[in-house]
Amino acid sequence: DCSAASRQRPESRGCLCFKRPLWKNNPTYLCHLSVPIPGASGLEPALVSTVCALQCQRFLISKVGEDWVFLILLGLVMALVSWAMDFAIATCLQAQKWMYGGLDTNVLLQYMAWVTYPTVLITFSAGFTQILAPQAVGSGIPEMKTILRGVVLKEYLTLKTFVAKVIGLTCALGSGMPLGKEGPFVHIASMCAALLSRFLSLFGGFYEARNIEMLAAACAVGVGCCFAAPIGGVLFSIEVTSTFFAVRNYWRGFFAATFSAFIFRVLAVWNKDEETITALFKTRFRLDFPFDLQELPAFAVIGIASGFGGALFVYLNRKIVQFMRRQKAINRFLMKKRLLFPALVTLIISTLTFPPGFGQFMAGQLTQKDTLVTLFDNQTWAKQGINDEFEYLGILEAWLHPRSNVFVTLVVFILMKFWMSALATTIPVPCGAFMPVFVIGAAFGRLVGESMAAWFPDGIHTDSNIYRIVPGGYAVVGAAALSGAVTHTVSTAVIVFELTGQISHILPVMIAVILANAVAQSLQPSLYDSIIRIKKLPYLPELGWGHHEKYSVRVEDIMVRDIRYVTLNCKYRDLQQVLHSTKMKNLPLVESAESMILLGSIERTQVGALLSTQLSPQRRLLMLRQKVLPEDGHQLSDSSIRFQVSAATILGDILEWEEQQLDQLVDFSSAKIDPAPFQLVEHTSLHKTHTIFSLLGLDHAFVTSIGRLVGMVSLKEVSRGQGGWGGTEQHLELFAHGFGVPAAAQGHRGLPDGQGGEGAPAARQLPPTPYPLSPPCIASQQTWGRLAGLTPLLQGWIGTAVLVAQIPQPGGLHPPGPAVFLCQPHAATKV
Amino acid sequence: DCSAASRQRPESRGCLCFKRPLWKNNPTYLCHLSVPIPGASGLEPALVSTVCALQCQRFLISKVGEDWVFLILLGLVMALVSWAMDFAIATCLQAQKWMYGGLDTNVLLQYMAWVTYPTVLITFSAGFTQILAPQAVGSGIPEMKTILRGVVLKEYLTLKTFVAKVIGLTCALGSGMPLGKEGPFVHIASMCAALLSRFLSLFGGFYEARNIEMLAAACAVGVGCCFAAPIGGVLFSIEVTSTFFAVRNYWRGFFAATFSAFIFRVLAVWNKDEETITALFKTRFRLDFPFDLQELPAFAVIGIASGFGGALFVYLNRKIVQFMRRQKAINRFLMKKRLLFPALVTLIISTLTFPPGFGQFMAGQLTQKDTLVTLFDNQTWAKQGINDEFEYLGILEAWLHPRSNVFVTLVVFILMKFWMSALATTIPVPCGAFMPVFVIGAAFGRLVGESMAAWFPDGIHTDSNIYRIVPGGYAVVGAAALSGAVTHTVSTAVIVFELTGQISHILPVMIAVILANAVAQSLQPSLYDSIIRIKKLPYLPELGWGHHEKYSVRVEDIMVRDIRYVTLNCKYRDLQQVLHSTKMKNLPLVESAESMILLGSIERTQVGALLSTQLSPQRRLLMLRQKVLPEDGHQLSDSSIRFQVSAATILGDILEWEEQQLDQLVDFSSAKIDPAPFQLVEHTSLHKTHTIFSLLGLDHAFVTSIGRLVGMVSLKEVSRGQGGWGGTEQHLELFAHGFGVPAAAQGHRGLPDGQGGEGAPAARQLPPTPYPLSPPCIASQQTWGRLAGLTPLLQGWIGTAVLVAQIPQPGGLHPPGPAVFLCQPHAATKV
Repeated sequence: DCSAASRQRPESRGCLCFKRPLWKNNPTYLCHLSVPIPGASGLEPALVSTVCALQCQRFLISKVGEDWVFLILLGLVMALVSWAMDFAIATCLQAQKWMYGGLDTNVLLQYMAWVTYPTVLITFSAGFTQILAPQAVGSGIPEMKTILRGVVLKEYLTLKTFVAKVIGLTCALGSGMPLGKEGPFVHIASMCAALLSRFLSLFGGFYEARNIEMLAAACAVGVGCCFAAPIGGVLFSIEVTSTFFAVRNYWRGFFAATFSAFIFRVLAVWNKDEETITALFKTRFRLDFPFDLQELPAFAVIGIASGFGGALFVYLNRKIVQFMRRQKAINRFLMKKRLLFPALVTLIISTLTFPPGFGQFMAGQLTQKDTLVTLFDNQTWAKQGINDEFEYLGILEAWLHPRSNVFVTLVVFILMKFWMSALATTIPVPCGAFMPVFVIGAAFGRLVGESMAAWFPDGIHTDSNIYRIVPGGYAVVGAAALSGAVTHTVSTAVIVFELTGQISHILPVMIAVILANAVAQSLQPSLYDSIIRIKKLPYLPELGWGHHEKYSVRVEDIMVRDIRYVTLNCKYRDLQQVLHSTKMKNLPLVESAESMILLGSIERTQVGALLSTQLSPQRRLLMLRQKVLPEDGHQLSDSSIRFQVSAATILGDILEWEEQQLDQLVDFSSAKIDPAPFQLVEHTSLHKTHTIFSLLGLDHAFVTSIGRLVGMVSLKEVSRGQGGWGGTEQHLELFAHGFGVPAAAQGHRGLPDGQGGEGAPAARQLPPTPYPLSPPCIASQQTWGRLAGLTPLLQGWIGTAVLVAQIPQPGGLHPPGPAVFLCQPHAATKV
Repeated sequence: DCSAASRQRPESRGCLCFKRPLWKNNPTYLCHLSVPIPGASGLEPALVSTVCALQCQRFLISKVGEDWVFLILLGLVMALVSWAMDFAIATCLQAQKWMYGGLDTNVLLQYMAWVTYPTVLITFSAGFTQILAPQAVGSGIPEMKTILRGVVLKEYLTLKTFVAKVIGLTCALGSGMPLGKEGPFVHIASMCAALLSRFLSLFGGFYEARNIEMLAAACAVGVGCCFAAPIGGVLFSIEVTSTFFAVRNYWRGFFAATFSAFIFRVLAVWNKDEETITALFKTRFRLDFPFDLQELPAFAVIGIASGFGGALFVYLNRKIVQFMRRQKAINRFLMKKRLLFPALVTLIISTLTFPPGFGQFMAGQLTQKDTLVTLFDNQTWAKQGINDEFEYLGILEAWLHPRSNVFVTLVVFILMKFWMSALATTIPVPCGAFMPVFVIGAAFGRLVGESMAAWFPDGIHTDSNIYRIVPGGYAVVGAAALSGAVTHTVSTAVIVFELTGQISHILPVMIAVILANAVAQSLQPSLYDSIIRIKKLPYLPELGWGHHEKYSVRVEDIMVRDIRYVTLNCKYRDLQQVLHSTKMKNLPLVESAESMILLGSIERTQVGALLSTQLSPQRRLLMLRQKVLPEDGHQLSDSSIRFQVSAATILGDILEWEEQQLDQLVDFSSAKIDPAPFQLVEHTSLHKTHTIFSLLGLDHAFVTSIGRLVGMVSLKEVSRGQGGWGGTEQHLELFAHGFGVPAAAQGHRGLPDGQGGEGAPAARQLPPTPYPLSPPCIASQQTWGRLAGLTPLLQGWIGTAVLVAQIPQPGGLHPPGPAVFLCQPHAATKV
């Protein structure tokens, strides 16, 4: 696992350097292909048709390589997935309603049905996800943020995870718990893009290299087809996943998200759900006078309160997770009975929402979608002073309680849903928090709106016309503000416009969202950053507002001065020592220890490879042969070597030979050296360093002073320098090592070939080095050599001897030689 | 001028490295200030109040430094400017209408009034702008794009230009010509931000360093308060001005643009123009069934046609400019009579729109605003098959012609306005092209919509309800598509939603805009890029779509191999030679000519400064004194030196001394060396190089191979490598030199201190080097020495002698010494 975890990902920057075969986008080449068939007129029709078919195929393949084909396919697939999931979720919810309705003779039975159904679904979802792909758990946006930063999270973009996420999410949302689908959809779209690019590359498309650009577009598609909100989707995905955005890639997101949203809504029309393409939660507020200027303070209050609420939500969510983890007893118990926690949470939540029970005070029988529809409703619910008292018709009835008024229902709803959502989103199923928060925000806005309507029954405007207050507009504002506060985004404003199909409340929404963001950002990280923090994903946190004292921190204050380096004229022994003494992924190559002029950087694996080559089995065998042959004076068959040389002699010889080899000067000609690693100077400010690291996706940079290497900074130092997430050592460790569940197996990007030449594609074609010579391995190389010879004595010896003897012909397959063998103790039993 | 042109702009990257005094954002420090007043109780009340006032002042000053204060002020000022300008423009247009209406007894007088009024206004605008600040001419977006890229365009952000642009634009728009205000508004907002930051820095704000971030926000404010479209403004400004966008700065734009749009609309309410805050061009399309699915092909047709139309517009606009420039005779005549061209164009256009004349066939009497209002109208104009024939009421009447139908009027309008707009935007007044194009697009959309309405009188939908086609919706789609095609942006979609206050046509608009962009981008550069090309602004063009063969071009194919360099152990003479032989702004510093190990980069001006210091008047005087004193044996008064030494002796001595000085080894200790210039390797692809150049705002990079300098690439090579704008040498020259009118005086950013340390703020405090030793100057230094001695003989000698003698006391003011004097021939007369 260790090997897979540290697998490098050169293509992460490789997106900037992919190449295409010349015949792509070059029609003349296609013509060329058809011309030189000699005597085509005399050919059999079959052959001609074959040639034609070939040409058609080539043409099609060349089209497959176009970006827009990929984006259309991505949009199409995601729209289908989104629609199918929505359909399945609606069916699930319908089934629950039907069961609940059918059992209305017995409240106990009704309760059992109401509670069992979601519990079973959630438990199934949790179990299924756990078994198939634990990576599918949660939102996925934090992981996508990390992946777009250039880090490889293992197994996060595979078919297995895709299946787990789609099925898990459908079940989770079908249960009626307060969970969202927008985060998981970003993840699903990204997996879809990754799978699609792998699939299309079978037909000659070359997407691998553009993965990052396409993943960014996929994130937009995810949000876009989830809410049928292409513009909001693009902006939201940019805000939550990117640090620096290439305007060049802007159109990709728009194109794919628009196409996807279009297909998603066309499917609804085709299924006769809708008459034509309209918004998902269409509102019908009046156009001529949407709101009065004097209502703006109320909107501002919604914004500020949402800011505090959003920060509280993030805090609560994090505290719940931390509580579950810290309580060792609970933790141990839950780890054993993994499905107990989801079942328990579901049981509690569904019990509380049971409509004949406590649910009657919080509109418990409404699904999330129905809740939103009712909250965005055009009518005013509070009855005081309104002449034409309207009837609570249809689903609106849920908000009405005979013995309380609508304000109480709304307050109870907000309070209950708040902690329920914060709790539910910690369940280990695929789920997001956007939609629950959105609903809570809408309810809060509605509450303020109804209060305003009760306070000013005839509206505030004092002119001739009476314009009543529209509480639905307040709900829209509240929804945008609270979701904006939780996610730290402004684009939720655009999402609500697209969701409701009305933009008349643009100024109140913008003001509320900006105020909510200002408050929330000064109190808490965004929900996604909070999850990144909890999961300890390797992500460089943003420089916050107002940390201006950080501008005086310079690279010289944070850099590591005592770094190991490789000199141009060093010996193999020095290489070995360097590997022993440091864990750095990239080692600086300097001219000499005196001049310290930085010449380039060499990857740790490359250094390991140099060592392995020097002590390779081939060379060892060559040595052994040369040793054996002169003694006997005649040629021996290779297979008989093992019988000729005694084990003890071999061990001694090998050790002696290895010592000799280590004293030779290193030949760097075969090593891949990055001749221009990223350099900083001592006076660079932390702020600037942070920007450059984010901009170029670096994970380390060397600090030089007029060509001389003086130090090095990595993400770790930058993060520590800026105080990080409280700057705990524990957190910073993550930059050096992997991290725990669920992002257990991952690897940092190694060489940030920002200037590292075009080595990336070549490196990708090489198989990942199967034996990363990590320091402890190297350190114990000789120890292990002896151990291997002592403990399973015979087996060890034979193993070594066989290996030595098995590779007489150069050019044959290379089985791992002793140097490697000794590094991987668990491999010893295999031999 | 030459000196100002090459003035470097270190703060252009300095935005990443500004510092604040510690007492900012540190309230404890403020407390500290008040604590240690000894015996405060015994102090006089006056002193206490002084201390209080001081504290208040400090507190206020500390708030002045906050970003949001700046952004609010910017938004407020721009809203006021926008509103005042709108008011003035409306008054101008009203005046024209009033004059025209008052003279309805005599058609000739009417014609005179109709034609003279705009001609006078445009001529005044052109003359005023020309005299006050020629930089105010045109849109301003291309220049802002260049400035945000990091280039300093001289005089582009000054108060003079601000005044010229505001007044010029008001007059130009008041004339009723088909000109827009959105481009100039971007420029005005940027100037406003620049001036505001300079103003606030008087109170202790430190904005200079964050200029670029604030300018980006200002661009958003410009569009935002022009259209009352905050979201569209932010997105549009990102699309047209940025290459890579820092999501970190996103909120600034949103915050400022929202505030600005809010104030702008509040002013309208306050002025009783509106009852409440609503959209600028509010539409009232039905919400329940905005369009039928089967209408989508028509929308797609609008998109594709707009794509071609947009490309044609850009082409036409460029051809007109090029024609005017190429025709030497016209050009010479126009240069002499600068105001003739604007007057002539205005005369032609206003003659053609004269309502009783040809204007009757093209709704000539409508202003741009009225035209848009009528085009977005809810009703269907085509009468065929409509039962309830409506009356052309109010301003709608303009579209009705008794002897032709509305289709003819629309077609004539589109065709005439198309070339008129393309022509009018070449007039040298402050003007944009967005709004004219927007109107043409709306008219085209309306045309398609009316055709559809005539074709399907009862709508396409065949179900129970009859939903008629809404031609106004087509107009909205057309406006977004054509303006999107001309500017190559997708965000025009958002702008139309905000302008009309309805988002119901989101999918048609998005589809049309994306198709229009796809077509237009494959045919022509955007209007702004086209202007950049015409004005030869130093901007790296984007990598186009489908130039995939460029991925195989590598740095080694395009780099300059034969570059001049400075070695660590060189002599001053070598420096002089290097300056002679190259025009490079930054010279590489290598260890030695043999090793070629790159140690850093040194600015040309620094090299010049080193030379100047070595040959400085002070040192010369010291030499002369040391020469004179020993001869006489007693101390002379400084002023008498001039009488003691004969002119001829001095010249000989000086030349000899200079030769000696030039042979000394260079002391680099006083020079500012960038110890980590940006490096690439030979194998880096052109695509990647382009990305890195754009990302970091570089204008050159050194190519190294394991520490050895092997070449260099600059913007010029990158641009040439990617084919540039057709790759003409003429275009590429701009990267090496300045360029002509109107961007006459500008300078490239020199040292891209992407890694250049924190030298930037320090460098900013130094006065800009007044004498850039540009190669021709240096080359002719000695020649000039002799010339100065020969031609104005006496004057030259006295000048030199006086200068030599005038600076006896070190520490006094330094008048320019001979070395400088000789470089600036025109200064000779001054002395």
